[in-house]
Amino acid sequence: MYLNDLLKNIEQHINQDITLEGWIKNIRKQATFGFIDFSDGTCFEHIQVVYDNNLPDFDTINTFNLGSSIKVEGKLVKSEGSKQAYEIKASKVTLLGDCDKDYPLQAKGRPTREYLREIAHIRPRTNLYQAVFRIRSVAAFAIHEYFQTNGYLYVHTPLLTTADCEGSDQMFKVTTLDFDNLPMAEGKCDFKKDLFGKKTYITGSGQLHGETFAMAFNKIYTFGPTFRTENSNTKTHANEFWMIEPEMAFMDLNDLMNVEEEMLKFVVKSVLDKCKDEITFLTQFIDNGLQDKLTALVNSKFNRVTHKEAIDILKNANVKWEFEPSYEEDIAKEHEKYLTEHFNGPVFVYNWPKDIKAWYMKLNEDGKTVAAVDLEVPGAGELMGGSQREEDYDKLINRCKELDVDTAPIDWFMDLRRFGGCVHSGFGMGFERLIMYLTGIDNIRDVIPYPRTPNNCDF
Amino acid sequence: MYLNDLLKNIEQHINQDITLEGWIKNIRKQATFGFIDFSDGTCFEHIQVVYDNNLPDFDTINTFNLGSSIKVEGKLVKSEGSKQAYEIKASKVTLLGDCDKDYPLQAKGRPTREYLREIAHIRPRTNLYQAVFRIRSVAAFAIHEYFQTNGYLYVHTPLLTTADCEGSDQMFKVTTLDFDNLPMAEGKCDFKKDLFGKKTYITGSGQLHGETFAMAFNKIYTFGPTFRTENSNTKTHANEFWMIEPEMAFMDLNDLMNVEEEMLKFVVKSVLDKCKDEITFLTQFIDNGLQDKLTALVNSKFNRVTHKEAIDILKNANVKWEFEPSYEEDIAKEHEKYLTEHFNGPVFVYNWPKDIKAWYMKLNEDGKTVAAVDLEVPGAGELMGGSQREEDYDKLINRCKELDVDTAPIDWFMDLRRFGGCVHSGFGMGFERLIMYLTGIDNIRDVIPYPRTPNNCDF
Repeated sequence: MYLNDLLKNIEQHINQDITLEGWIKNIRKQATFGFIDFSDGTCFEHIQVVYDNNLPDFDTINTFNLGSSIKVEGKLVKSEGSKQAYEIKASKVTLLGDCDKDYPLQAKGRPTREYLREIAHIRPRTNLYQAVFRIRSVAAFAIHEYFQTNGYLYVHTPLLTTADCEGSDQMFKVTTLDFDNLPMAEGKCDFKKDLFGKKTYITGSGQLHGETFAMAFNKIYTFGPTFRTENSNTKTHANEFWMIEPEMAFMDLNDLMNVEEEMLKFVVKSVLDKCKDEITFLTQFIDNGLQDKLTALVNSKFNRVTHKEAIDILKNANVKWEFEPSYEEDIAKEHEKYLTEHFNGPVFVYNWPKDIKAWYMKLNEDGKTVAAVDLEVPGAGELMGGSQREEDYDKLINRCKELDVDTAPIDWFMDLRRFGGCVHSGFGMGFERLIMYLTGIDNIRDVIPYPRTPNNCDF
Repeated sequence: MYLNDLLKNIEQHINQDITLEGWIKNIRKQATFGFIDFSDGTCFEHIQVVYDNNLPDFDTINTFNLGSSIKVEGKLVKSEGSKQAYEIKASKVTLLGDCDKDYPLQAKGRPTREYLREIAHIRPRTNLYQAVFRIRSVAAFAIHEYFQTNGYLYVHTPLLTTADCEGSDQMFKVTTLDFDNLPMAEGKCDFKKDLFGKKTYITGSGQLHGETFAMAFNKIYTFGPTFRTENSNTKTHANEFWMIEPEMAFMDLNDLMNVEEEMLKFVVKSVLDKCKDEITFLTQFIDNGLQDKLTALVNSKFNRVTHKEAIDILKNANVKWEFEPSYEEDIAKEHEKYLTEHFNGPVFVYNWPKDIKAWYMKLNEDGKTVAAVDLEVPGAGELMGGSQREEDYDKLINRCKELDVDTAPIDWFMDLRRFGGCVHSGFGMGFERLIMYLTGIDNIRDVIPYPRTPNNCDF
């Protein structure tokens, strides 16, 4: 059976015969008995296995190495003197797979997170990454649950694209050509010879394709990997990450904020409910305020201020800013932090100056701002960014001309405004940023199974 | 409100005021009244809206074009003479977004699927693709549900990789370099200048990384996009598709077959339960046997035969084969078809000749076969392929030497056999193949939102 199933209904199993398969997390050997700290990976909690010299294989068991896989047969009994209320009194312990002496996770010493990144294939076995990656899995499912039970369609938008209108400087190029022998024509690479017959990229967003499905299915979401070529080594950037991009017909900016708020609370509540041990561990060892922060969010009402109101607040604050707040500009990390502290909770900042936001966002009646919204969250900064979309064909074309956006490769996207277009809105959420928020971990490299960053694509 | 919510509890809403926003799927105009075939995209079913010349805007409504987005206000009433039991008697119909006359989906004529691929941004609005893509979404969620409720961890294995041991000829190359001006060193492209400092690919499988997580979390699954460079234009190949790859510690080949069978039945049952209208439609217009085929699968017991037994059956069959069945070779499409008909249901074929299977599969005691298994399903052929993995370090190294697999870039994968390795198994399922099976659609281009095939990366 699985340890998780045993622990969930442990009272039912007292004095019953139990068989478990898993790994030795630690082993303490005495002359006449020994203890194995046992886990099978199905839950955060371990269980203690006691063996003694009444077992015919006692001497053999005493030779087992930390990290080995074993089969444990025995009885679940009330524990005396152990941290846990129950333990397994072994009748037989069988070695399934030995562990070499150079196993990097030994009982003594606590390896640094930097070192653990170098053994990314082993680090999921540590408590920290058991907590992080289980929360990642539970949060991913909670996102699917929220959208599916609320009538959204899950769409797999394509990653390969030949349209570079989104900013090809941030997109990876993809090819089947031989780099050592590129077909050239007049000094340029001849992509007619490539698999798709054109220069091809990996897209950085599924939004445009998502909108085509929102015009057919009303409410849709995407959830998939995303790629950016940014050559920056910060704690919050990775070149490969996962993103969620919902898009909703007949919803304006206010409706959008409602969805973002409801969705985030659902996901946080789901993690609090399903990952109690993991949150307790992270609160103890990573971020003392984690449990309180998450619980507070579920019960809070998110604040909503315009960009102008936000700048007013920042200008009136008695703070020496590194970056002076400005009505024409983005807000800096220090501002985000101040605002969430000022409101003591999450804040939507909406109606942004049009010049610092994207071409497809809905122009407000003032002609100066767009119906965009960023959600700022305590301890994480900007968690989601979204907007009402410009549904007016002529206004969108004008905006594209102003900003020199070539609409030819996305005529299909423009078409949506000619064929039964409507008010609609959507947002994007970086999944890793959510996991950093949920775990209190401050480095994106520690919430992705195998992080990809500049000069780092190992494993 | 949403049409889906209305139809689910329609009896409760009789004679109540209803407001809906959605699209005109068809409009029939008479002198004193008219009918709008209305859908808001939240469910397969439409509803009829009746308007008459008692409305002040009657003449305006009569000018509305098919495809336009509208807001309908009115009362839900019992219908007389319509196909449906209920309709909406409009008190007001407001135009939200007009639809230009060149809208490609007009009431008359049934566009071919080939043509609809050329308007991939519009085709989700047709009945066929409403059915297909809703089933795709429901099936995707069912897969998550199955694994999450059975204690599996969802892992996001990386797509970018610098290890080309999986067969780099099938992998796309990825770069940030300028194709027109590659940095060359001694006649070869100098990848030290590239973002990751090495030649980089998009992987075609998450299995190896998945195994590292199975050794930590016991049972895991992946679900993400996958890429192959195959230059083949068939009905079943695409260069971008989605794949599910579960990996389970302490499971042998038999356990693996149990998981595959249970998972598939869960997903099919989920689609039958949640997509009744869609399955009915597809059974009527695409594949008359669809409903029966899916229902039979849920209630069947999958057959299990060895590759040798399968070849015996094929050799004894009174059939003139295009490809002669052979104990040393793969089975052809015609063989798959015969076997599923012979058993009148799904068949696991296991214990394959080692020479036609992958290097990481568990060598059986006969020294000739590996513990691999393919699941053959009526009407779809091979739906899943999996194996027990070779957990013995020395045997795996030997096999790699025999097959000239360079293990240096995957020393981390080999490590799993030194550090508490154990019997473990996993499989891969192409998601599009599942959707083809679930919908009866025979072309992969019609089950992917925006298919990518050779010389075809539009939209």
